[in-house]
Amino acid sequence: MAVISYAQMTARRAGGVGRHFLSQLSLLSQKLPNISLVLISRSTKSLRASHRTTPLSLSTWEKDLEASTSPPLTIEQTLKFLGELPDKRVLVDNTSSQDVADAYPAFLKQGISVVTPNKKAFSSSLRLWHAIVESSYRPYEPYLARGLIYHESSVGAGLPIISTLKDLLHTGDTVHRIEGVFSGTMSFLFNNFAPLEGAGGTWSTQVRKAKDAGFTEPDPRDDLNGVDVARKLVILARIVGLEVESTDSFPVQSLIPKELEGVGSGEEFLERLSEFDGRMDEVRNEAASEGMVVRFVGSVDVRGKKLKVGLERFDKGHPIAGLGGSDNIVSFYTERYGDNPLVVRGAG
Amino acid sequence: MAVISYAQMTARRAGGVGRHFLSQLSLLSQKLPNISLVLISRSTKSLRASHRTTPLSLSTWEKDLEASTSPPLTIEQTLKFLGELPDKRVLVDNTSSQDVADAYPAFLKQGISVVTPNKKAFSSSLRLWHAIVESSYRPYEPYLARGLIYHESSVGAGLPIISTLKDLLHTGDTVHRIEGVFSGTMSFLFNNFAPLEGAGGTWSTQVRKAKDAGFTEPDPRDDLNGVDVARKLVILARIVGLEVESTDSFPVQSLIPKELEGVGSGEEFLERLSEFDGRMDEVRNEAASEGMVVRFVGSVDVRGKKLKVGLERFDKGHPIAGLGGSDNIVSFYTERYGDNPLVVRGAG
Repeated sequence: MAVISYAQMTARRAGGVGRHFLSQLSLLSQKLPNISLVLISRSTKSLRASHRTTPLSLSTWEKDLEASTSPPLTIEQTLKFLGELPDKRVLVDNTSSQDVADAYPAFLKQGISVVTPNKKAFSSSLRLWHAIVESSYRPYEPYLARGLIYHESSVGAGLPIISTLKDLLHTGDTVHRIEGVFSGTMSFLFNNFAPLEGAGGTWSTQVRKAKDAGFTEPDPRDDLNGVDVARKLVILARIVGLEVESTDSFPVQSLIPKELEGVGSGEEFLERLSEFDGRMDEVRNEAASEGMVVRFVGSVDVRGKKLKVGLERFDKGHPIAGLGGSDNIVSFYTERYGDNPLVVRGAG
Repeated sequence: MAVISYAQMTARRAGGVGRHFLSQLSLLSQKLPNISLVLISRSTKSLRASHRTTPLSLSTWEKDLEASTSPPLTIEQTLKFLGELPDKRVLVDNTSSQDVADAYPAFLKQGISVVTPNKKAFSSSLRLWHAIVESSYRPYEPYLARGLIYHESSVGAGLPIISTLKDLLHTGDTVHRIEGVFSGTMSFLFNNFAPLEGAGGTWSTQVRKAKDAGFTEPDPRDDLNGVDVARKLVILARIVGLEVESTDSFPVQSLIPKELEGVGSGEEFLERLSEFDGRMDEVRNEAASEGMVVRFVGSVDVRGKKLKVGLERFDKGHPIAGLGGSDNIVSFYTERYGDNPLVVRGAG
């Protein structure tokens, strides 16, 4: 088995994904003593194991990093540092940085595996996607000793979406269509705004409530523009084999009123959003008049090579209509599963 | 990466799982030329690669096996044959034989990996379960060079149930409860007998229909006794860490009327089943009078260490009530997922 020996953590904000990752690593390392943490790199500083035999402490890393006066490592320095280590190495990228993502092919070619939730690596330019795939380990050419790449959490957070899709493909199934609710924020908003039973209040109230509950980005427009969902769709579509150039290559419906796109702050946006509640009311009422509810979904039509992100109506009995909380749901329609898709659902 | 070099297939019936496996292997081998088929063993005969450098043909195996006059290999002979081969070896057991299952620990200890849908290996005696776990590869002791064991399809067929459960556990989540519909046959029967809308006909008609559609075992009692579901529950419970002795250690509701248990043939059973339609009508009506539907489910209460298989009532809005066709559904209630479980659903 691979001995995971090195990890880099680059956290944008203290207390974020990076911190959680290190606390999980700390737990895991008690069961798998062969894991050593050798480098933590943040935007402002870094911490490096001084000797190969003395890894960083997983219990005092936070204090140690605080005390460190070393500047952050450049990509080149990180590559050099990891390249000189003899064991199996894993770069854990907890940033959402395009710069780090752009360097994945270089890491992989050096045999350094990459684990990351960073969507940008897989949903920005098609060229980077191909470079990553071509630079990573391939069972056909094991002698190349390339790194493995894992990015399960780039779609559906902890839900087994990417692994399920790859399993279907690797075992010879043909995927016809993927459809789902890919954003916990959008799920929360629409499950509350257009519930199966009862009234849902105004749209702007729901967005405010979602923000207060911590379900949105600091600026809610980063959720409402649909780009996050579009990125996830691009990732799934590319795994299936579609050559999707970018999130601009297909229709992505934004729920930001045109008039508020240029508004300065997220707070100002929220304050003015109620002016446009009428529009969302109309969308909800039109669906309701046909006994349906509206949801924000993404879909990949594999045969038609079409991707789409936006509002759609669903019968109340449809699994997408019946979602609760901030659940994600993804349905895989395949040759093997026929009309009844393989469905994965849960918190995103 | 592991080069899978040897496979044994033991198929009880021609045209069954074993045949499908070999046709999938044939497809896969075009992409992964390092896979060699070296042994096919059936109940009546076997076919063995004569030289290490000349594997069996994946295109003519059926004819070649037909022409073979070699008797089936005993477990000891198989162990010896595979043990002498230098590469990585995989035993694919497509039987439901207890004898083959009992030999897994011996194979694993010799470094031979095992892939199988054979439920008996994991749901019969707790002693065999522990022997399998202890004989297989452990990341803590890689120097033991033990075989890996994969049995995803022993629960939920192609659905990612076991891998999802293991992922939850390996990443530090605590599983509180597992609940679901684990039998495609039971799913089909109850989705039709107690549909969300409309009438469902009599129970005996539905069983007959399921049999005619090929959804039951040759003798439908092998589905209706609940043992198949109980076996799957035992597997999941043991993975979570519960020491479940056997399928006799917890309540398993059988849908076979006591009066028909001793009836000779499955056909005779089917003919007489209508005499007992009143009982199932009552079950359905009682649920309906409260606006609910009845389903055949299994559940593992991890904290309470309780397993249960049988009929339960569900609100019409519950995901289990809304199943279609012969779909399976499994919900994982965990610390991380809180009240909204992680759900996997699809054809079983």
